[in-house]
Amino acid sequence: MLKYRTGLKDMPSYDVVERDWKIKVNANECNMNLPPMVEDRLMGRLSRVAFNRYPNEEYDALREQIADNHKLEIENVLLGSGSSEIIEKLFYCFGGTKAKKIVYPEPSFSMYRIYTKAAQALGVPVSLEADYSLDVAKFVAAVNDHKASLAVICNPNNPTGTGYSVSDIEFIAQNIPSNCALLIDEAYMEFYGRTSVGLLKKYPNLIIARTFSKAYGLASARVGYMLASKVIVTMIEKSYMPYHMNVLSLATADIVYQMRHEYVPRIQMMIAERKRMSTELDKLPGVTVYPSETNFVLIKYAKAKELNEYLESKGIGVRCFGDAPGLKNCLRISMGLREENDQWYDAIKQFVEGRA
Amino acid sequence: MLKYRTGLKDMPSYDVVERDWKIKVNANECNMNLPPMVEDRLMGRLSRVAFNRYPNEEYDALREQIADNHKLEIENVLLGSGSSEIIEKLFYCFGGTKAKKIVYPEPSFSMYRIYTKAAQALGVPVSLEADYSLDVAKFVAAVNDHKASLAVICNPNNPTGTGYSVSDIEFIAQNIPSNCALLIDEAYMEFYGRTSVGLLKKYPNLIIARTFSKAYGLASARVGYMLASKVIVTMIEKSYMPYHMNVLSLATADIVYQMRHEYVPRIQMMIAERKRMSTELDKLPGVTVYPSETNFVLIKYAKAKELNEYLESKGIGVRCFGDAPGLKNCLRISMGLREENDQWYDAIKQFVEGRA
Repeated sequence: MLKYRTGLKDMPSYDVVERDWKIKVNANECNMNLPPMVEDRLMGRLSRVAFNRYPNEEYDALREQIADNHKLEIENVLLGSGSSEIIEKLFYCFGGTKAKKIVYPEPSFSMYRIYTKAAQALGVPVSLEADYSLDVAKFVAAVNDHKASLAVICNPNNPTGTGYSVSDIEFIAQNIPSNCALLIDEAYMEFYGRTSVGLLKKYPNLIIARTFSKAYGLASARVGYMLASKVIVTMIEKSYMPYHMNVLSLATADIVYQMRHEYVPRIQMMIAERKRMSTELDKLPGVTVYPSETNFVLIKYAKAKELNEYLESKGIGVRCFGDAPGLKNCLRISMGLREENDQWYDAIKQFVEGRA
Repeated sequence: MLKYRTGLKDMPSYDVVERDWKIKVNANECNMNLPPMVEDRLMGRLSRVAFNRYPNEEYDALREQIADNHKLEIENVLLGSGSSEIIEKLFYCFGGTKAKKIVYPEPSFSMYRIYTKAAQALGVPVSLEADYSLDVAKFVAAVNDHKASLAVICNPNNPTGTGYSVSDIEFIAQNIPSNCALLIDEAYMEFYGRTSVGLLKKYPNLIIARTFSKAYGLASARVGYMLASKVIVTMIEKSYMPYHMNVLSLATADIVYQMRHEYVPRIQMMIAERKRMSTELDKLPGVTVYPSETNFVLIKYAKAKELNEYLESKGIGVRCFGDAPGLKNCLRISMGLREENDQWYDAIKQFVEGRA
């Protein structure tokens, strides 16, 4: 037996089992590929890549663009392979021993628990209320009681869809110790708009994570970014290996970000679809629909497992959470194209009306 | 002050300071972009990427192709963002505390020391001989004496260029305990050919790391791979976050690997250039040239620092090692195009002949 790191053997592998779905609405992806104008410019850019050279100015070019847009400086921006890598590195940097406590809501993004374990830290999940609202006083108390090194809020929250107000976030920032980092994971913020970026200057322990994978439809490229004080960026940067971002993804994100106005109509469309489908789902007997500020909807249904199996049999992939805490009998459905949404809705309707 | 991980503050940042070199021969890159036929196919492939989808079958497609070529199974192959990520993860997985010792030669790839530190392990450098040959008995003794969890050999060795025979590698494999993992970093193997892949079946603690960055000229894309027993692959996989590889890089490496016969002539050309330049450099007074089996040459020269400054002033970037152990007064020069090689050679010649 080789001498592996303590705890490695018990690390859960995040197994993503994918099938060839006819309708794939299980990963909160955007169900449209690049807008045609973006594609044209991107293909031109990719044909000019020096494939033989290590990444160089492409990294800072994207950082600078992101900084400008948020009225920050380049030293306030750190890039990662999706916001996943940003979050993984943050957990690593604020972890290291069980004495380091990381507080996050439950249910929320399932990887928080896994990244906590990978960072050898101790996770402190704070239960959301029955309607998935966040009791900010309870959250603050948990951070204080545990003398946490890192507190995390996913806003709007995945997989519940719940949006939290900037004043709620500011309440947390005000009432936790300034030596606890506060990460707001804004992966779905483009669908909501109430960003906490404006609080960065006031709270030097605040960190915002964003991704190109959702609203900008770039899940393939794995690009995310973090906004924070220069001091935090400098420290987190130390946990990155050299050349951790590749040129193709950087160039792709750069073009997409330059042309981000092209995404406004499709973001509006996804929001409109979410509203339409929430209203429709709400009509179904026995189906609870939770308010969402994202590109997906969470529903609760007594026979969720059977419904999921029925959808699978129709080639429709939605996200089922099994017995995950706070998510029993819940299914998460990403917004696809209008016609895809009509199809999964019809299948759900058939099932709940006993016609399946 | 935020509660950062112990030791993070002292982590050295690997600062890569790049300038707009007229001749860039400092990073062992391939100085040619994609072969035209590869470029054509690749651009067609990239135009068909589903940018909006998370990576899926592209990961296993590349693994399978690599496995087939090495007469291994897909479960013997793990991919990473360059062999850098493979090495970083291996050090992480065999580290965790100072009780875990990682043995590597010195001088060798400078990141071994940094990854050891990042993994909270204890590094045990074993000095190479004056001619950069490896005393395998001394290396084996260090591994045994320190009850190491991981032993690393870079073959051929960067930055010295030295190649070690398969029988030397097998001697090490035979004489270290089977509970110590043995990593052979074969980043430059395509220029040498004497791979240890054939030893994998016999030594279940053996691990081979390879990269697309050097011979295949894909430094931009950050793709590397690891070959090892299924048991090791399964364990190291646990340290990876989901979707750690992006589709663009996977698709690029896939096309390049399919068309790898296109790279044979240019690999031969780089070897020929290395031989030509080694012979030429050897003629210069006061310049020691070390035998190389790679796409670069290491030279020693009493006024290396001044020579480096002179080259910089001419817009020529080579790699200088400052006071790094065993590399005092050494410069590493990657093989560029024939005309680039002629130019940096002329500049060196001028300097050492006192005509600069």
